[in-house]
Amino acid sequence: MTARIPVGILGATGTVGQRFIQLLEDHPWFEVAWLAASDRSAGKPYAEAAKWRLNTPLPKRIASMMVFAASSPEGAPKVIFAALDSAAAKEIEPKFAAAGHAVISNSSGLRMMEDVPLVIPEVNGDHLPLLKTQKWFKESGGFAVTNPNCSAIGLVLALSPLHRRFEVQKVFVSTMQAVSGAGYPGVPALDILGNVVPYIASEEQKMEEESRKLLGSLNGKAIVPADITLSAHCNRVAVEDGHMESVSIKLNKPATADEIINAWSEFRCLPQKLKLPSAPEHPVIYDPAPDRPQPRLDINRGRGMAATVGRLRPCNLFDWRFTVLSHNTIRGAAGAAILNGELLKAQGYLN
Amino acid sequence: MTARIPVGILGATGTVGQRFIQLLEDHPWFEVAWLAASDRSAGKPYAEAAKWRLNTPLPKRIASMMVFAASSPEGAPKVIFAALDSAAAKEIEPKFAAAGHAVISNSSGLRMMEDVPLVIPEVNGDHLPLLKTQKWFKESGGFAVTNPNCSAIGLVLALSPLHRRFEVQKVFVSTMQAVSGAGYPGVPALDILGNVVPYIASEEQKMEEESRKLLGSLNGKAIVPADITLSAHCNRVAVEDGHMESVSIKLNKPATADEIINAWSEFRCLPQKLKLPSAPEHPVIYDPAPDRPQPRLDINRGRGMAATVGRLRPCNLFDWRFTVLSHNTIRGAAGAAILNGELLKAQGYLN
Amino acid sequence: MTARIPVGILGATGTVGQRFIQLLEDHPWFEVAWLAASDRSAGKPYAEAAKWRLNTPLPKRIASMMVFAASSPEGAPKVIFAALDSAAAKEIEPKFAAAGHAVISNSSGLRMMEDVPLVIPEVNGDHLPLLKTQKWFKESGGFAVTNPNCSAIGLVLALSPLHRRFEVQKVFVSTMQAVSGAGYPGVPALDILGNVVPYIASEEQKMEEESRKLLGSLNGKAIVPADITLSAHCNRVAVEDGHMESVSIKLNKPATADEIINAWSEFRCLPQKLKLPSAPEHPVIYDPAPDRPQPRLDINRGRGMAATVGRLRPCNLFDWRFTVLSHNTIRGAAGAAILNGELLKAQGYLN
Amino acid sequence: MTARIPVGILGATGTVGQRFIQLLEDHPWFEVAWLAASDRSAGKPYAEAAKWRLNTPLPKRIASMMVFAASSPEGAPKVIFAALDSAAAKEIEPKFAAAGHAVISNSSGLRMMEDVPLVIPEVNGDHLPLLKTQKWFKESGGFAVTNPNCSAIGLVLALSPLHRRFEVQKVFVSTMQAVSGAGYPGVPALDILGNVVPYIASEEQKMEEESRKLLGSLNGKAIVPADITLSAHCNRVAVEDGHMESVSIKLNKPATADEIINAWSEFRCLPQKLKLPSAPEHPVIYDPAPDRPQPRLDINRGRGMAATVGRLRPCNLFDWRFTVLSHNTIRGAAGAAILNGELLKAQGYLN
Repeated sequence: MTARIPVGILGATGTVGQRFIQLLEDHPWFEVAWLAASDRSAGKPYAEAAKWRLNTPLPKRIASMMVFAASSPEGAPKVIFAALDSAAAKEIEPKFAAAGHAVISNSSGLRMMEDVPLVIPEVNGDHLPLLKTQKWFKESGGFAVTNPNCSAIGLVLALSPLHRRFEVQKVFVSTMQAVSGAGYPGVPALDILGNVVPYIASEEQKMEEESRKLLGSLNGKAIVPADITLSAHCNRVAVEDGHMESVSIKLNKPATADEIINAWSEFRCLPQKLKLPSAPEHPVIYDPAPDRPQPRLDINRGRGMAATVGRLRPCNLFDWRFTVLSHNTIRGAAGAAILNGELLKAQGYLN
Repeated sequence: MTARIPVGILGATGTVGQRFIQLLEDHPWFEVAWLAASDRSAGKPYAEAAKWRLNTPLPKRIASMMVFAASSPEGAPKVIFAALDSAAAKEIEPKFAAAGHAVISNSSGLRMMEDVPLVIPEVNGDHLPLLKTQKWFKESGGFAVTNPNCSAIGLVLALSPLHRRFEVQKVFVSTMQAVSGAGYPGVPALDILGNVVPYIASEEQKMEEESRKLLGSLNGKAIVPADITLSAHCNRVAVEDGHMESVSIKLNKPATADEIINAWSEFRCLPQKLKLPSAPEHPVIYDPAPDRPQPRLDINRGRGMAATVGRLRPCNLFDWRFTVLSHNTIRGAAGAAILNGELLKAQGYLN
Repeated sequence: MTARIPVGILGATGTVGQRFIQLLEDHPWFEVAWLAASDRSAGKPYAEAAKWRLNTPLPKRIASMMVFAASSPEGAPKVIFAALDSAAAKEIEPKFAAAGHAVISNSSGLRMMEDVPLVIPEVNGDHLPLLKTQKWFKESGGFAVTNPNCSAIGLVLALSPLHRRFEVQKVFVSTMQAVSGAGYPGVPALDILGNVVPYIASEEQKMEEESRKLLGSLNGKAIVPADITLSAHCNRVAVEDGHMESVSIKLNKPATADEIINAWSEFRCLPQKLKLPSAPEHPVIYDPAPDRPQPRLDINRGRGMAATVGRLRPCNLFDWRFTVLSHNTIRGAAGAAILNGELLKAQGYLN
Repeated sequence: MTARIPVGILGATGTVGQRFIQLLEDHPWFEVAWLAASDRSAGKPYAEAAKWRLNTPLPKRIASMMVFAASSPEGAPKVIFAALDSAAAKEIEPKFAAAGHAVISNSSGLRMMEDVPLVIPEVNGDHLPLLKTQKWFKESGGFAVTNPNCSAIGLVLALSPLHRRFEVQKVFVSTMQAVSGAGYPGVPALDILGNVVPYIASEEQKMEEESRKLLGSLNGKAIVPADITLSAHCNRVAVEDGHMESVSIKLNKPATADEIINAWSEFRCLPQKLKLPSAPEHPVIYDPAPDRPQPRLDINRGRGMAATVGRLRPCNLFDWRFTVLSHNTIRGAAGAAILNGELLKAQGYLN
């Protein structure tokens, strides 16, 4: 029995930070050893700094841990999970990477930087070596690895097995996203009770460009984005957790419904082969019922790490239509980063 | 001051039947004189037969009116507004038309019949003469006219002005539909609280085929459907009233954003020219705010009879993306039929 | 035809401020002539300073009006409707009263001050002369009048007719309050979707002490609170508008159900006699249906100014149990202040 | 390792029936061996007869089990968990008991019968011997034991430790109950979205009379109800699972806040001493946070079997006020019956 790797959490008090704490409690490889948040929280015990909003109890050990200021890497462990807002991430994460830390980030700040891997382990775990091109890696051994936006991740999990077999060419996607995706306090109740908001700032652009990078390939020292055209409509709905997406796709190679369902069902990748602790047995689950997936019923499949696909049917305009659902704060945020951390560990990047 | 035309309501106790009563109270041309519903309700005063669910009071005169059985046209006035379920409509509406009644129906039963006009007055009021080809019309002077599905109506209101100027070629639409669209009791709370259901039976097919008929043209004695390809994804969300739709369109003729917005803003048709009592001044309203339309804020525009469009922006796959909202039980149901009735009256079909 | 009285709104951009604007549009006596809000909003046109959240359009005249800083009464009209938060109210409202303004406030800041009338016109319009004891009134002719908390107002409307006839002795009340009561952004969606929050800061104390002042009597120069003991439980629920309250009461004089219902139904007061423009014909409406009142169906009775009572039945512990509902941002806030303003005008206090 | 006891489920397809299946999967003592439901479901495999609505997968073994008609005990195992509606229960449960079955029922049909134990194991496990007075028991060895209504159970769990130490005399309770309490399809979405319904048929009476029986004592061959007066207001709110209750109590013996909190925290009973598999370590948990309990955050405490209490504060009318929450389909229904079954087993009644 080996000791667990101590890890720190940047942005530990927010919605995603709390998920990190919840998911890392009892993690076989990682142990939360350091918590950091804004200056307002620094110096307080975690239970006081954070308004714990999850429906499992705040672990006692964490409750009494002191929160540090996120602004300085001093005293932080080598491995850092980050859940900062985008602006803070752009400023703070490079500091940590420059100081030799492995920054495994859920933030959007660095995702589209040329030398920063944007990774879903099942989809493009082979992009990780890109991190070796980072100046930080060369200078201090530190680096930054990111996971995509919560709305891109479910989509790309569903597209990846199809792209491998049939080459996805065009994607139309319309989302119905949960309020937890906006953090806390996030969306005011008056804006969303009995309502739909057809706008989430920057979300459509993120889905479109991140999906192309994720489905692209590592060509020597750079990512060549996939040659896919996407058009996204992003909407917020009165759901707590779970992003739903209506998708139409055009493929380069013909595929029958059975072939598509097989591609999803047989999808197993690096995380499954390496038996990473957070990897779901089936990253993509096809549900044949006529009215699934649904957030309330399906978000916890694979402990929140599986995407559920349903309603596969022909599209009048493209080839196929379907619906995909994934848990936006587990598979779409904290769980995504932890799985990236596990892959990094398994491949020796955290030594 | 002329007397109002007495009208009957088939399916008077349901969600749409109640809207008919609400909207016809104080109507300048029509007066509710006869109510009919299922055998279970027949013989009871309306207040007892119906569970009134609108937030304006049940008119006292209506409360004490006796409900008749929908199965027989005996004693019914000439003009009938119908809100039966599809199966009942197929059986009952032809009986009424054969008996010489003007059946102005919101039901889906007869919508796609070759000789039955499917009409949105602003879009294809010129399809009404098709009713003269009906066997009923020739034999008894009776006829049936229908309005489209609640999800088709908002979409087609937004498409029509664009189709006239730029020819719509392809339409991708993903809906987020209110629970009132399913009637009462309709959607169980356990199915929709904090949830999205990605399926509404037959809805996608209805949107696709009804839209083509609505945007088509009357060629002598038949409707030639518009040459448009549509692909619909229909979803139910936790909203009480108001269907939202994310739309991407491809046009045959190029159009700038300004030209599109102008097409919407300048859209005035028969109902506006004839000053029909229920016609909104602007059937389509473009809202330039980045996060509109929204059901809670925008469904009552034009007293529930206007469609609100927003978020016009280029589409990566087609030409333009936008969002459209309309009130599903007013513009999408009872109000639609009443406007059809007003057009029929204005054009002499109810004499 | 006389000119309308120009009025100003302090706190014009918030939830209640917006209701003031909505309800005063087309008001026969008052005309919005001056808008003020926080320093952040000052100097901007209203449409830019406020995020309009009501489902009727922002009046065009208001949209382009410049917003002033609430901190100074300079340039403000004599009559001021105020919707500031409590802390700001305590500082700013006295400034305006001292400068000779009639401050008609919805804020809680001054409500319990000894010389400030806390008024519901139907209940204790006769408390208004208390304002003459204010130092401001003597020195500048200015004064402050307040209306109660949104949760107290529905309760006291239901209690007042019973108190007059049967003397209320004890009141147990448990509320289910709408999110709009917390203003905007107010309650985070993550806190209330599919949830109940059993706590609203200071709300229980406000209900208890304000109710006693409202039902008390003006004895020369001071209010003698009613000798009623109240115990309140305040809860927040996922409702947009409308506070529901479960109530049990003990009376000093025996009353039958019919006598109680009559007391409510016959309740007519000063505002009804004076035909104040915002006064509902029936301030309290008893609905005999077994499952009413309900927020979605009943909040707009009397244009949002009537309280609806239902479910009158014996109480095992006290005498009677019932449920009362009122619209928290109309009768419970902006409408309450406007009705106070109308009573002040009718009684000559605004000359 | 002993074999598990085969059990049957009456009413297996409904909301509570599904919870039985979920909670009994992997139960150490009981194994589902027989499923029964209405005639409509009889003869179908369970997966086809039931619309599975829980967010854990339907166990495969159960999915393919054949559903029998609930009308006949033929072929059913000795131990039966029942979740029938009240009318069906009154007719069917006696048949099973007469045929020698141990009927452990969640239904309301037999609860208030003089010789039927109404039991919460932590509260009145000592009422079980009452079952020996049943005619069925004498004639066939069969019997019926019931658990209380979902709204009574949380209240009585909170009252029981106080009643033991301080004697509860008066109880005022106002509930905010989840929609799952009404079964499926149950509450229509149109009735509860953005709404509160202040009425649940028979619920107030059930709470009042069941609570007195539960807190009563077994005196020889009959239950003497507790001498407590209760007044209940029952409301339905837009929550999926979890009944909230605002409570005021009057005690015969004085108690400080600390003494009350200790009474709750130290509450351990038969199920805890016997280490029954479904018994929560702490049946009542006091949460000192100012805004707890909340359904979304607290219903799963003790795996849904603990009641959470909060907001203890003095009451102006009685002695103390507080809020209690419990999971209505686990602790309030299926879990309650299973815990009764475990107590019956531990005390030798199922041999």
